Order: sequence, then C-alpha cells, then structure tokens
Amino acid sequence: MSSSDIFFGEVIGTALLILLGGGVCAAVTFKRSKAHNSGWIVITFGWGMAVLTGGYVAAGVSGAHLNPAVTLALAIEGTTKWADVPLYFASELLGAMIGAVLVWLAYYGQFHADLKEPAMSERKGENPGPVHGVFFTSPEIRNVAQNLATEIIGTFVLIIAILTQGLNDKVGLSGIGVLLVALVVLGIGLSLGGPTGYAINPVRDFGPRIVHALLPLPNKGGSDWSYSWIPVVGPLVGAALAAGVYQLAFA
Amino acid sequence: MSSSDIFFGEVIGTALLILLGGGVCAAVTFKRSKAHNSGWIVITFGWGMAVLTGGYVAAGVSGAHLNPAVTLALAIEGTTKWADVPLYFASELLGAMIGAVLVWLAYYGQFHADLKEPAMSERKGENPGPVHGVFFTSPEIRNVAQNLATEIIGTFVLIIAILTQGLNDKVGLSGIGVLLVALVVLGIGLSLGGPTGYAINPVRDFGPRIVHALLPLPNKGGSDWSYSWIPVVGPLVGAALAAGVYQLAFA
Amino acid sequence: MSSSDIFFGEVIGTALLILLGGGVCAAVTFKRSKAHNSGWIVITFGWGMAVLTGGYVAAGVSGAHLNPAVTLALAIEGTTKWADVPLYFASELLGAMIGAVLVWLAYYGQFHADLKEPAMSERKGENPGPVHGVFFTSPEIRNVAQNLATEIIGTFVLIIAILTQGLNDKVGLSGIGVLLVALVVLGIGLSLGGPTGYAINPVRDFGPRIVHALLPLPNKGGSDWSYSWIPVVGPLVGAALAAGVYQLAFA
Amino acid sequence: MSSSDIFFGEVIGTALLILLGGGVCAAVTFKRSKAHNSGWIVITFGWGMAVLTGGYVAAGVSGAHLNPAVTLALAIEGTTKWADVPLYFASELLGAMIGAVLVWLAYYGQFHADLKEPAMSERKGENPGPVHGVFFTSPEIRNVAQNLATEIIGTFVLIIAILTQGLNDKVGLSGIGVLLVALVVLGIGLSLGGPTGYAINPVRDFGPRIVHALLPLPNKGGSDWSYSWIPVVGPLVGAALAAGVYQLAFA
Repeated sequence: MSSSDIFFGEVIGTALLILLGGGVCAAVTFKRSKAHNSGWIVITFGWGMAVLTGGYVAAGVSGAHLNPAVTLALAIEGTTKWADVPLYFASELLGAMIGAVLVWLAYYGQFHADLKEPAMSERKGENPGPVHGVFFTSPEIRNVAQNLATEIIGTFVLIIAILTQGLNDKVGLSGIGVLLVALVVLGIGLSLGGPTGYAINPVRDFGPRIVHALLPLPNKGGSDWSYSWIPVVGPLVGAALAAGVYQLAFA
Repeated sequence: MSSSDIFFGEVIGTALLILLGGGVCAAVTFKRSKAHNSGWIVITFGWGMAVLTGGYVAAGVSGAHLNPAVTLALAIEGTTKWADVPLYFASELLGAMIGAVLVWLAYYGQFHADLKEPAMSERKGENPGPVHGVFFTSPEIRNVAQNLATEIIGTFVLIIAILTQGLNDKVGLSGIGVLLVALVVLGIGLSLGGPTGYAINPVRDFGPRIVHALLPLPNKGGSDWSYSWIPVVGPLVGAALAAGVYQLAFA
Repeated sequence: MSSSDIFFGEVIGTALLILLGGGVCAAVTFKRSKAHNSGWIVITFGWGMAVLTGGYVAAGVSGAHLNPAVTLALAIEGTTKWADVPLYFASELLGAMIGAVLVWLAYYGQFHADLKEPAMSERKGENPGPVHGVFFTSPEIRNVAQNLATEIIGTFVLIIAILTQGLNDKVGLSGIGVLLVALVVLGIGLSLGGPTGYAINPVRDFGPRIVHALLPLPNKGGSDWSYSWIPVVGPLVGAALAAGVYQLAFA
Repeated sequence: MSSSDIFFGEVIGTALLILLGGGVCAAVTFKRSKAHNSGWIVITFGWGMAVLTGGYVAAGVSGAHLNPAVTLALAIEGTTKWADVPLYFASELLGAMIGAVLVWLAYYGQFHADLKEPAMSERKGENPGPVHGVFFTSPEIRNVAQNLATEIIGTFVLIIAILTQGLNDKVGLSGIGVLLVALVVLGIGLSLGGPTGYAINPVRDFGPRIVHALLPLPNKGGSDWSYSWIPVVGPLVGAALAAGVYQLAFA
C-alpha cells in the first residue's frame, strides 16, 4: 500500500464517514429538516451506513481504517506497519474535518435559519449550544471514570470484531466484510450509545470539534474542550485492550 | 450489451425504483394508508429497498444505472460508451414516468378519496399541493446555492461508492453489490435527505414531475417547475465531481 | 426434487413465514405485548424477516416458493414442472394454516385476555373484528378494481425480482439470494402495503383466514369472505404478468 | 476444535451477545440515555446485531453457539460432540454473566442516578424492579403453559434455521451465515417477542439473572426466580423439537 493510497483512502473514506454520521445528527436535530425528531433508530442506522459508505469506498484503497483506534489495533496486531501509523492518523483527522465542513455545507440553510430560534432542542439548557451534537459527543451524565469506561467498552467491541474478521472470511469479499463491520457499529450504537453517544473513534469526535470551534455558526456556544480528551483516550485504550485479548485468546 | 438490453433493463429497473420510491412517499402521506405517518425511517428504507429491487432486476441486463448521474459518471470513467448515453437517459426517464403512473394506480383510491379533505399534511400551506411529495422533491428552505450544494454532495457520495465498487468486489456477485449500493442510498437518505429530500437522480425527480403535471389529480396544485432544474443539475454536477475525484485519487 | 422434499420444505417454510408474519401483526396489535403499537417499520421488517426465515430453511429443500404466485411464475418460466404445481399449492396452503395456528398458540394468552376488552384497535369499528389483521388482509378503501390493482402491482414486483435472480447470482449462494428477496418483500411492504396490507401471496391470506374461521376466538367477528378472493386472484394475475414481461423483455 | 477454542470463543462471544443485548435494554430503559423510549424496533435490532457481533467474533473459533439450545441441537444432530457439551454450557453461562456485568459498567451512572427516581418505567408496579428488564425476561401475562409454549416456538424457529444452514451455504462464508442467523433472531424478536420478551436462550436469561441478584443496585427489587426456569426449559425443549423435526423432514 503506497503512501498516496493511504492518504487518499483515509481522507476520502473518513470524510464520507463524518459527512454521513454528522449529517444524520443534523438531519434529526434541525427543525427544518425532513428527518426532524425521527429518533434513535435513524441516528444509529445513519452512523452504521456512514461506516458502510466510507468503508466501502476506502476498503480497496487504504484498508478503510477511518479510525485511529482501528489503526492502533492493527499496528499492535501486525497488519499495519508502525511506520505508517502517523500518516493514517493525520489522514483520518483531516478527513474527519473535511466531513464536518461538508455537513455544514449540506445543512448551511438549517444552521443559519434554525439557529436564530432558541428552543430547537429539548435539552439545550445543559449543552454547550444547540448544534454541538452535530459535531461532537457529550455524555448524558458527566463522570470521567464512567464516560471513559463506556467508550472503552464500545470500542473494544468494534475492534475485537475487526480483528476476528480474518478468522471468518473464507472468501476475500471486502464488500461483505465492510457490511458486517457496519452492522457491528449499528449494534454498538443501539446498545452502548446511550450514555456518551458512542464516539468509539478519536477523530470522529476531535476533528468535528475543531471544525465547530472554527466555523462562524450562530448561537454555537462553547466546544466543550474539557470533555474532548475522553473520546480520544477511551477508544485508544479500548483498542489496545481488544488487541491484547485477541492475541491472548484467539491468535 | 445490446440496445434492447439497455432499453428493457433501464425502463423496467427505473420503473421499479420509482414505483417503490414514490410508493413509500404515498404510503406515509395518505391518511387511509396502513403506513400513514410512519416516519423518516420508513421513507429512507423504502427508497433504499427501491434501489435494491430496481437494481437487482436490472443488474444482469443493463448494468442497472437507473439514474442519469450514474450513466454520466460511468461514461466519464469509461465503463459505459458515450454512444449509449442518450439511450440510457431516455430509458431512465421513460421508466421513471411509468413508475410514477404505477404509484398512482396502486394508490388510486387514496389519491381520489383522501384528497377531498384539505388538511392531510401538516405543511401543506407552503407546498404546491398535498401530494407533490409523492412525485417530486422540494426543499425545506428555498435557496438555489444551498439546495444545489446539498444535491451535489449527496450525489457525490452515491457516485464515488459506485465507482469504487470495482476495487472491492473480488468475487463477481452483483446481488451483493446491489445490496451495498442500496444501503449507501439508505445512508444518504438518512443523513443528507433532510434539506431537499435527496433526489440525487435527475429522472427520479423530473419523470414523476411530468406525470404530476399530466395526471388528473384532485387538489394537486402546481408542479413547482421553478425548482425542477435543481434536482437535475445538482446530481449531474455531483456525478462529474465524483468521477473527477475518483480518477485523481483512486484510479 | 422429490415429492417429500417439496412437501416438507413448503409446509415447514410456509409455516415459518406465516408464524413470523402473523406473529408480528399479533405483536403490534395486542395491548399486552412488548411490541404494542410499534408501527409500520416493525410490521414490514417482521414480514421481511419472515420471508428470510422461511426461505432460508426451505431453500435447499424445496426451492422455497412458499407462495402459489411464485410457483405459478416458475411453472410458466419453466423452472418448476407443471406436474409438481398441485403439490406445491397444497403444501403451501397447509403450511400457512399451521403457521396461523402457531401464532394463536404463541399469543394464546393475548388472544384470550386482551379480547375481552373492546377498544383494542383504533379502527375496530370498520373491521370484521379486532384480531382479523393477525390472520388476513383487508383494504383501507374497499374497491374491487383498486384493491386488485394494488395486489397485482405488488406481486409483479416480487415475481420479477425472483425471476431475474438467475441473471445476477454468479456464485450459487442461496443464503444471499434469500436475503435479497426478503429485502424486496420489505420494500414492497414499505411502499405498496398502504392500501391493502400486501398479501402478494394467495395462501398468506387464505390459509390464516380459514384458521380464523375455525378457531374459537372471543370477539373475533366475521372472516370477511367477500374480500377473500382478491388476495388470491390478484397475486396470481401479477405473477403471470411478471412471467410474461420477463420472457418478453429479459429472456 | 480445542477446549481452549471452545472456552474462549464461547465466553467472549456470549459476553458480547449479552453486552449488546442487555445494553440495548438499558439504552431504552434509562431516562438519561440518548436512546430512551426509542421502542421495539431499537430493541429487536439491538439484539439482532448482538447476535451478529458475538457470532461474528466467535464463528471461526468455537463455532459461535452462544446458546445452550444451539449446543443441544447440534449435539443431537451430530455436529457437536456430547463430550464437549458441558464445556460449551459452562462457557456460555460464564460469558453471559460477564456480559451482564459489562452492561452494568457501561451504564453505571444510569443505574445509580436514574434509579433514585421511582417512575422510570410505565409498568414498574407489576415488575420486580425498574431495571429487571435489563437483565432478564418476564412475561406480559403470567401463565406457565403459555409462556413455555411461546419460548418453545421461538427457539424452534431459531434452531431449525441454524440446522438447515448447511443445506444452503454452497460457499463457506461464515460471515454471511452469521448475518442470516442474526436476521432470523431479529425476525423472532419482532414477531414472537411480544408475550415473553424472547429469551430463546437459557443463559441469556439465567446468567444476567444471577448477576442481577448479586450486584448492589439501588431499587432493584427481586430477581423473579419463580419464572426463571421457563426461559431455561422452554428453549431446550424447542431445540430438541427442532432437531427432531429436522432429522425427520430434511436429513
């Protein structure tokens, strides 16, 4: 895999992931959206199909990590060279930022029309601003140990599934593999997304958070930097744990 | 691929796409429908399965473009001959019109009974007529640049996924490929459908709009021709952009 | 394929189809059900997964028709011998009746506790009885031509998809084929189920209707025999039309 | 298959099954969860994707039984050695208990914050405690014969589908096989989960019930031991019946 394959695959794949993932949050959040208030099943399928789309596009190019937690686990496990890790990380972060900007462009009118009205979200009082959920995650109950634990557990599930993929696919069908991982992410969202909104991917949270801080959005509020390290550290710890369990139990 | 394969595959496939896609809009819109008001998850899965059905039927016959944006991208990329493009376009438009007529037949009673009552849709005031959404898309916020941008971005996602398919499928399983593209369309709908209703296909919008103008529907209102060029131009621009990015980054 | 394979595959497969299909109607209908009032997405996925389950079990045994409309189309097209058609039909009807009895057993307590209370369904006034929807379909608007048209169109979609399957599956993966047909049925339900409840299968409606007439259910009302021929004739006509179009356009 | 493969595959796979399955019940139950009250479609997809995830991880290691009913049926049918059955059962039970503890960790804040408030669930009056549904099943109508029948029927569907898998998969794609079984479980949940909450797996109910009895949860109420034998015995009877029918009809 050449450096340019890694770069283009991860940038484009991660941008698609965040475009569709952030997009579904926008779709459900804004009042002037055909998907307004359409619920958790829409959000979780949106993120699942975001993984499918980004993964499907990048699978044959860069291996479709789209997530530093995946890159870390594959480096520990030996599939990815450690020397390629910085390029993967940087490409994933850049892609996530591009994706967040594209969400803003796709919902530009909504960002600028709906945000003039204050009561868009039922919970706006406790949050940094009504659109923060389009960009980054925030917990229902703030508690460092608890929020870290939830992100570690969620990412563990993702990574152990990705690592065991090689044990299962007897025919090399990357389309099917991508579908199955997308459905695992659907499952993680449905089941473990309740407490923290399931970042399970450092750049999924950090990239759009930077974009949120930079964009000239009305009423955007703060970018909640005090929470921002949890969806970075939690997923990396979960990935390392999963790689360790995989090597002890299955390899 | 013979001309008759292109013709029959695209006409029948696109008719199935619009029959099920327009059908789910009818199912959710009409009061005397078992699916009345069943929400965005029903609409997006309906369109996703519409792509699956039309694509599955036409895949082995005409390659299942079902969309001039797909035809344009595949011509730019070289899979489809430019000489075949006019036949593809015409067959797709004809199929879309047939599909819209079939929706009318399948929901004939609903069109003619429910439309006597005025307050069927919550938003009818701002719309050309209560059933327009069964036929064509319309934006939540009217703004040419914004609406074009949303359609360009949505179609870009579709086309880049279709173009990279060849990089992924190591076994020639068109059924799986169709399923994956259908799920990409599900994802586009869930995530990017909020502002404009995701035409992402010129004939999906233009074909049924013509049928809407021609059919003798009660209370149908205008066919909103001033908006009609956006879901034609936006998808074609998005397709060309995706073909360009594909060739620069992946080919 | 031996007669005993046809018999066991079709009886068991169709029983599973109707058990899960009728089951989801019961799940949504009864007040003392964890799925009470969970909506159209639950009903359509329930029927889709019912096709998947019955089809998956019977595919390798009898070919998993599970539907006289499928048997008729495959006989016209030449895959199924005309001499086997009566056995298919009889096995499918028997299986559908067994499935309906199993729904009654699985929801026995609900049938006998909830039915003492009158106002279970919002629309009970216009219906033959509050549980009829667990057994057979009924239209939202009664109109012979209209209801026939809807069933013909819906079944046409199902059959054309099944007939073109051979054009697509380049690897003989019946599990995938069954999944795709199940998703086509999901799509038909979402999009075309609104007016009549999408029988699209003569025995799906007729078998449980007989069981409804025979079972000692409280408050069951009539079995609506005057409508019963439509979900038998409509699907058979739709299947014959689809077989004709397939042979003209694709074969 | 070595003993350590059986042990690690079943423990980890069943832990993932119960983590995501119990997790989705927690996600929907707790007030301070982003998935609060998101309905039956979320619960059934959550359990379906739980089967997918646990099954996908364990398929290439232990065969991914994850359920004593599956182990029993495969032993009767001859795929699994009777000598391995005790290790399968013990590993599945241990995995289920680990999964239930992980749900508690992932939702720790919710368990300890939300449970101080009494009116979390609409039906709390009739139940052993507001969070019992996160751990174990309970029927809508208590009736031994009825509840057993529902669990027997639901498990029969699961097991007959698993046993016929060998008849269908002409290519050895365990990823696809796991997906199909996960969708069968989705179907069982949608259609047959209404009366008892579809344990269809002895350890899915019994393991978390033990954990519920042991954990120091506020307001947890009793563990409803009088019902606990039904989701153990029912699934085993259903599995034995399915194995018998399979051998009579299909083998």
